[in-house]
Amino acid sequence: MSPPAAVEVDLRGDSDTSSVPCPDPLTVDGVAAWRTKTPKIPTGVAPATHSDMFKSPHCYTKPKAKRFDHRFSLESKSRKVSTLKGAAKYLKNPELISLGGGLPSPEYFPFEELDVKVPTPPGFSPEATRESGTVLKAGKHDIREGTSLYDLEVALNYGQAMGAPQLLRFVTEHTEIIHNPPYSDWQCSLTCGSTFAWDTTLRMLCERGDYILMEEYTFSSSVETALPLGVKGVPVKIDAQGLVPESLDDILTNWDEKARGARKPFVLYTIPTGQNPTGATQLAERRKAVYKVAQKHDLVIVEDEPYYFLQMQPYTGADAAPVPPPASHEEFIKSLIPSFLSLDVDGRVMRFESFSKVVSPGSRVGWIVASEQIVERFIRSCEVSSQNPSGIAQLVLYKLLDGHWGHSGYLDWLINLRMQYTNRRNAMVQACEKLLPRDIARWTPPAAGMFHWIEVDWQKHPGFSSGKTRAEIEEDIFQAAVNNGVLVSRGSWFKANSEFEERNMFFRATFAAASEEKISEAISRFGQALRAEFKL
Amino acid sequence: MSPPAAVEVDLRGDSDTSSVPCPDPLTVDGVAAWRTKTPKIPTGVAPATHSDMFKSPHCYTKPKAKRFDHRFSLESKSRKVSTLKGAAKYLKNPELISLGGGLPSPEYFPFEELDVKVPTPPGFSPEATRESGTVLKAGKHDIREGTSLYDLEVALNYGQAMGAPQLLRFVTEHTEIIHNPPYSDWQCSLTCGSTFAWDTTLRMLCERGDYILMEEYTFSSSVETALPLGVKGVPVKIDAQGLVPESLDDILTNWDEKARGARKPFVLYTIPTGQNPTGATQLAERRKAVYKVAQKHDLVIVEDEPYYFLQMQPYTGADAAPVPPPASHEEFIKSLIPSFLSLDVDGRVMRFESFSKVVSPGSRVGWIVASEQIVERFIRSCEVSSQNPSGIAQLVLYKLLDGHWGHSGYLDWLINLRMQYTNRRNAMVQACEKLLPRDIARWTPPAAGMFHWIEVDWQKHPGFSSGKTRAEIEEDIFQAAVNNGVLVSRGSWFKANSEFEERNMFFRATFAAASEEKISEAISRFGQALRAEFKL
Repeated sequence: MSPPAAVEVDLRGDSDTSSVPCPDPLTVDGVAAWRTKTPKIPTGVAPATHSDMFKSPHCYTKPKAKRFDHRFSLESKSRKVSTLKGAAKYLKNPELISLGGGLPSPEYFPFEELDVKVPTPPGFSPEATRESGTVLKAGKHDIREGTSLYDLEVALNYGQAMGAPQLLRFVTEHTEIIHNPPYSDWQCSLTCGSTFAWDTTLRMLCERGDYILMEEYTFSSSVETALPLGVKGVPVKIDAQGLVPESLDDILTNWDEKARGARKPFVLYTIPTGQNPTGATQLAERRKAVYKVAQKHDLVIVEDEPYYFLQMQPYTGADAAPVPPPASHEEFIKSLIPSFLSLDVDGRVMRFESFSKVVSPGSRVGWIVASEQIVERFIRSCEVSSQNPSGIAQLVLYKLLDGHWGHSGYLDWLINLRMQYTNRRNAMVQACEKLLPRDIARWTPPAAGMFHWIEVDWQKHPGFSSGKTRAEIEEDIFQAAVNNGVLVSRGSWFKANSEFEERNMFFRATFAAASEEKISEAISRFGQALRAEFKL
Repeated sequence: MSPPAAVEVDLRGDSDTSSVPCPDPLTVDGVAAWRTKTPKIPTGVAPATHSDMFKSPHCYTKPKAKRFDHRFSLESKSRKVSTLKGAAKYLKNPELISLGGGLPSPEYFPFEELDVKVPTPPGFSPEATRESGTVLKAGKHDIREGTSLYDLEVALNYGQAMGAPQLLRFVTEHTEIIHNPPYSDWQCSLTCGSTFAWDTTLRMLCERGDYILMEEYTFSSSVETALPLGVKGVPVKIDAQGLVPESLDDILTNWDEKARGARKPFVLYTIPTGQNPTGATQLAERRKAVYKVAQKHDLVIVEDEPYYFLQMQPYTGADAAPVPPPASHEEFIKSLIPSFLSLDVDGRVMRFESFSKVVSPGSRVGWIVASEQIVERFIRSCEVSSQNPSGIAQLVLYKLLDGHWGHSGYLDWLINLRMQYTNRRNAMVQACEKLLPRDIARWTPPAAGMFHWIEVDWQKHPGFSSGKTRAEIEEDIFQAAVNNGVLVSRGSWFKANSEFEERNMFFRATFAAASEEKISEAISRFGQALRAEFKL
């Protein structure tokens, strides 16, 4: 345990970009030209860095985010800049010899070279990669030798909480290209993944006894992260498009602090795209309506978006011709539903970005996007917990995303994933159409994500008339499925609050991992179990 | 954000090792034979694992740890096993098709191979590695193909909070070989580094308003981790051997809850070896005395030990012949001062282990060792924050430590580091002997770590008689040093509590990173600054 390199982090953005005539937002094709105009990327050990180094001048034509001072927890408000980081200002003198920081010497890092074999677009399959993939090489002293902007000497040493500038640049540009937030002072910070970001955010915004707003069925781990902190979910109603804004408004308008024993909630946690577990996706108008309610009640919206790029082609039915892939990057980007971040005129959105579903969950690298004020508090917290995502993982991601694919190749990869998941989703839905008893089972073909949410009409179960509870019937069906060789998740596992009384019954089936054949076989088994249980 | 693979974690240790006749603790040479008797290592995605799979039968001849139920925070006590992990038991049926967990398919991980070039013992220098290093290869399907126990397919997917069994095995064996804890139910858990482990531990044990016991000068980041949680340090007196047990006992015996407005502290945070910032090392008798006080007052001892393997050869003076390196692994292990863990008959020690100073801080992989009860609570917390250290970093460490060096090669590496740091320390101390004004500057040659702690007799400073405060004189000297081209850290940056009133004045200089020539030049500049300030 030792201090990261003593450097002072200035998030105010001091690069002089105001005079560059470039009012348009960054595009994939514009990145190369824009990079030539930005200040040199800092390549030292644990350098100070921030997204303002990489955002285009277009961003600064917009108003600043609102302040959210009134929303931070006592813990977060108490955080100060590290003492040792304060000493960083002295390091600007190149003649100075530092005996200050406790950094180990890179000659004692026992890795001289790291190579990864990765796909060469458009050959994205494992087979193509094995045959014609590219081997990316990272040496220990590539920076000194002028062959790369990032190397093992730097990646293996301490880093800054917001991540290495080399990778932060890529995600900042990506964020501008895809979301182009409508306020000026947004920032990115790399994270150790969205689970970590959520835990950190809860501690940053909430106090014990608080409630947070969540879809009535939500990712159970997000509930379980909050509970030990004394923070409970308030279930907001959902429909086929997810979160219902009227329900949100209703809860907040009628919040009775005395009756609840808690202040009015102000954190909305939502998974807008391919929601876990329901697979629901909020369309643009829905998001705008939710955002309006958030403005009315001064909420902070946490949009947890691991499935954003698992938006799929429309589902057109078993016999329809497949919908062709987007013809260009532009068409692809246009096809994406606007994020809350892209609607966020106030700076009240924290967007959690993840590589888990689109590159690798094992990297434990993600990022957040939010206003400078919020990101600054977030970073202060990370400095004394995670410190930073693993440098080895950051280097590998940098080599792939920035050094090899670039934004263009990354979008190609994402389009490829979109088509792959479309096929998987189609296989799942078609299997359900063919193999499930439709008089008791209902679903909406998911437009994004990994999950298929199957509603079962439990009141038609023979147990209902003989007095079994909803929970007992759910357990019976689940066990019947397991006994018939298929594991699906029970809807009740995903309740935002254990006291939330369920009216309906659901099972979640994922189409992310099993092969098309296995999906079909699994749904067949589930159908058999349902038929047996319902005596059909 | 998605659930890690649904598996149930059973820390009770169900491997049947009781009948194996092997009463001796594990040794470096005994590992290979012992491994043949242990159950097969689980090689699936995010498998359930724990140290009991890897500890030798010798461990079970010892009594169990005491319970520490009364020490956990409200937050920690509220933690439950994840709902989704509860579904894991169904996965034991190999015929079952799981549509349960949200794991992405490995065909969408865009890395087919990862290679690292590492030193081949005994050629540990970067030059030797470049010339005759070994390239370690990790493919995507090495496990399936039978060529390795760990591969990209598994490392790039979700993992368990305690880490991959492949690396957990290595650190468990290492822990038994080096520390052989004197109770039976100790466990290891991999962590995202000791800063993260400390934050997690504070939340696990402390409530807002608590005090924790710390060396009066300590790692400032550890203080800054605690403060925003409402947890303050109580400074315990130190001497040339670090923590003074009588001071610890005195504070606890005379703790006045009313006057302090806080319950009696029960967490002792200590850096026993090469302490940061003082460089002090507690010898064996000192540790035993501290442990006794911990027993008397029922403390939990957190031993933060990044510098344990930076214990150096004795300092014998500028003109003495160098002390030869340890002649064998046995001699090396014997030369190490016993850790608190190795004295811990009660199971009241949490040991923080780190690869930062001996392999690479950028890996963000470390581990803790503690009783099963404590590690279980720790893991419950990680499951909903960090999830697990980066799989890419774990794979790289596994390939190096287990796949290539083994315990024998790793000890060779550590002995090599010991000699390297001995040379650095000698250069630092000899430069001080030659270049600092010894009438006002004093030090003890450090026996471990990276830091040299220089006391300056501030009352001989001309400012003292003219009424300057201690703090003003410290600032003057610090600035004079910076102006003369050398950055050292001010002792006051490391106060365990901002209210702690300093009697003496110190500066910390690290010998970890600068070359011997730079160290000498830097100390020369510091000497000039001191002479100018003190008008010598």
